[in-house]
Amino acid sequence: MAKVFLPKGTRDLMPATMNRRLMVISTVRDVFARYGFEPLETPAFERIETLTGKYGDEGEKLMFRILKRGEGGKRGEVDQALRYDLTVPLARMMAMNPGIPLPFKRSQIQPVWRADRPQRGRFREFYQCDVDTIGTDSPIADAECIAVVHDALTALGLTEFTIRVNHIQLLHALAEALGAADQETSMLQALDKLDKVGRSGVEKELLERGFSAEQVRKLWSFMDGAPIPGAAEAEAELRLILDLARDLGVDPDRVKLDRTLARGLDYYTGPVFEAVLDGEYTGSISGGGRYDGLIGMFSGKADIPAVGVSLGIERIFMLMEEMGLMPDTQTTTQVWATVFSSETRSATLEAVAVLRQAGVRVQVSTRVGKLGKQFKDASGRGVPFALVCGPDEAAAGTIVLKNLHTGEQISGSPAQVASELGA
Amino acid sequence: MAKVFLPKGTRDLMPATMNRRLMVISTVRDVFARYGFEPLETPAFERIETLTGKYGDEGEKLMFRILKRGEGGKRGEVDQALRYDLTVPLARMMAMNPGIPLPFKRSQIQPVWRADRPQRGRFREFYQCDVDTIGTDSPIADAECIAVVHDALTALGLTEFTIRVNHIQLLHALAEALGAADQETSMLQALDKLDKVGRSGVEKELLERGFSAEQVRKLWSFMDGAPIPGAAEAEAELRLILDLARDLGVDPDRVKLDRTLARGLDYYTGPVFEAVLDGEYTGSISGGGRYDGLIGMFSGKADIPAVGVSLGIERIFMLMEEMGLMPDTQTTTQVWATVFSSETRSATLEAVAVLRQAGVRVQVSTRVGKLGKQFKDASGRGVPFALVCGPDEAAAGTIVLKNLHTGEQISGSPAQVASELGA
Repeated sequence: MAKVFLPKGTRDLMPATMNRRLMVISTVRDVFARYGFEPLETPAFERIETLTGKYGDEGEKLMFRILKRGEGGKRGEVDQALRYDLTVPLARMMAMNPGIPLPFKRSQIQPVWRADRPQRGRFREFYQCDVDTIGTDSPIADAECIAVVHDALTALGLTEFTIRVNHIQLLHALAEALGAADQETSMLQALDKLDKVGRSGVEKELLERGFSAEQVRKLWSFMDGAPIPGAAEAEAELRLILDLARDLGVDPDRVKLDRTLARGLDYYTGPVFEAVLDGEYTGSISGGGRYDGLIGMFSGKADIPAVGVSLGIERIFMLMEEMGLMPDTQTTTQVWATVFSSETRSATLEAVAVLRQAGVRVQVSTRVGKLGKQFKDASGRGVPFALVCGPDEAAAGTIVLKNLHTGEQISGSPAQVASELGA
Repeated sequence: MAKVFLPKGTRDLMPATMNRRLMVISTVRDVFARYGFEPLETPAFERIETLTGKYGDEGEKLMFRILKRGEGGKRGEVDQALRYDLTVPLARMMAMNPGIPLPFKRSQIQPVWRADRPQRGRFREFYQCDVDTIGTDSPIADAECIAVVHDALTALGLTEFTIRVNHIQLLHALAEALGAADQETSMLQALDKLDKVGRSGVEKELLERGFSAEQVRKLWSFMDGAPIPGAAEAEAELRLILDLARDLGVDPDRVKLDRTLARGLDYYTGPVFEAVLDGEYTGSISGGGRYDGLIGMFSGKADIPAVGVSLGIERIFMLMEEMGLMPDTQTTTQVWATVFSSETRSATLEAVAVLRQAGVRVQVSTRVGKLGKQFKDASGRGVPFALVCGPDEAAAGTIVLKNLHTGEQISGSPAQVASELGA
């Protein structure tokens, strides 16, 4: 028999992992719903014309293309490709549903596919988790992006984070003020490394990139708070958004104006956000901003205002595991129902039915007799309790519930045992 | 601007639909977990070698093939294809994880893709919803397939159903007893139409297919309960499974031995099940059985016992809509927070934060002033309540909650209003 493999860069999400992911997703969905973001799903693939030209040369290379139906083999024609992100499908959906009431707030938690070189923690299939508000330029929508990330991270127990906030127009004004409007990207690429290499490192890089010492001196004065000419409007907008975020319950210590934050310059048009962990664990776990030019791309409308934020859900899953924030259980099954003998099997199954009806999660042993082995089956899977129903119990209409960790036992009717289990 | 389209045979699942689907999936997952079926997810695509030859000529044609990374255009090589079902991926996963403790019980709720000709209610991307128990021939596992479907349908409010049960070995014995072992498929294809065309219709078809009048007479006697030679073991096994299903709480009126049930002859090896609706709405909503030959296909082990059942979840979604079993809401948002003026905005958002913290789902209006318009925005979206915070309320630290259906209003602190809303 030939050996089988997973496709490169993919993985099976086994039950222990899936239970944790579903728990996280359920918490996140709940926070999203409290903000009025309601779930949307779009198809796994889009027409090739919908996706082509949207992700740059790099993205184009990483897109998984699908052969036109019926055309197998070498001469096949491509007419579809797997979803590369959740934003282009959203724009396509908005264009196809012009009557949708605005503002439209949607959450979307679905996998996307990119033929990236696989690395630790980076897969070719991974979930994205986005919320976006389409069709309003109200700063409340921007503030809610900050607030919803704040609340979601807090609800997940990821409490040591900072949400950095900046404004693309402020970055444009900064480059302009330095006389470097045509080198803005170059300036920002250097500035982006501030956290890693410090001011001296950035300075060195800027000089290498052809900036003058005077430009660098001016840059630091702007970073230290000197007013940037032409940035007053963007500054005022940011201050308003931060005030609104505070009104919405965001802890002011968790948000920071950061003039060095540069994200998606060819994509975002207004405020931008990034959440980073502060403590022992570091790195970006969320990012977003206002992108007023994109959603209209299929509608023939130049500007449909839009603002959104994405939780780095795969990274969050991984970090929560590493930080011990995930429940330490292999299984959600609570009770392993042992089968004492084929004579007591019916009584056992009847008890199991009562427990399940009460919401208790029970797996029935397919091994009969030899209780020690059955207890070991349960412990080996991390199931905390075993149910025993021997001839005496079967006759009395009771069951015994054994705590496999402490050895403690209680006995009672199935309904009593269910209520002991908190069901 | 070019018009955009969805790929053929696909759809967007809009929020009102998604909320209902998530509710159904959550109910189903909960029932699965009570039986010890825990969630698994596998990648959207598999290596082409894994899928090829598993679904017959028809399936082969309908598989979506993916071009090897980097090779665009006409001369591309295919190395992967989209998942066509959830069973082959399960078999692949089992072969790659030989140490997994058996029996292994998993649920899997994920989309699959088939390039079928689109029809009403049939899509090229659709969810499958399977539970399987791998690695045991215990009849408890078969009985639990019946019980878990019984409980899931009941939990969804689909109470008028019958689970038909038969045994593949019994069908083999039947064909043998009629002297038609080599025409078994032909016999079963005719018999399968019994519900639609009645005995006379089946009889006509059997005669046309070359069966003798004597064979048809014998067939009806077996259908009426005459013992089928060589079927005693299968009959006993079915009786045992039905007894166990009853022990597990299955309503006996909902299960029926049905010697005409013929499903997946080249696939199933033992008991087979099918749930059909009885009332005004009809048709199959679940099917499954024992398939001991399949899971081992990648392991080089001839027989890994396996039994499973699939809920026809797309059909269930559709039927529940038609039957009025879905909540009649466009949205899960409970409260539309109006903004009276920019002066009261902060007080409004602070109240919203309190409600959200208490779990209430609130959307903030991005329109300011003109409350009538804001109420209309809310009603138009099916949001049941509006929150008003005018200058008096802002000064007093209270809010007004208006029931948009009855016009009734209550007033109180945000915390009081949250508790009125049952949060």
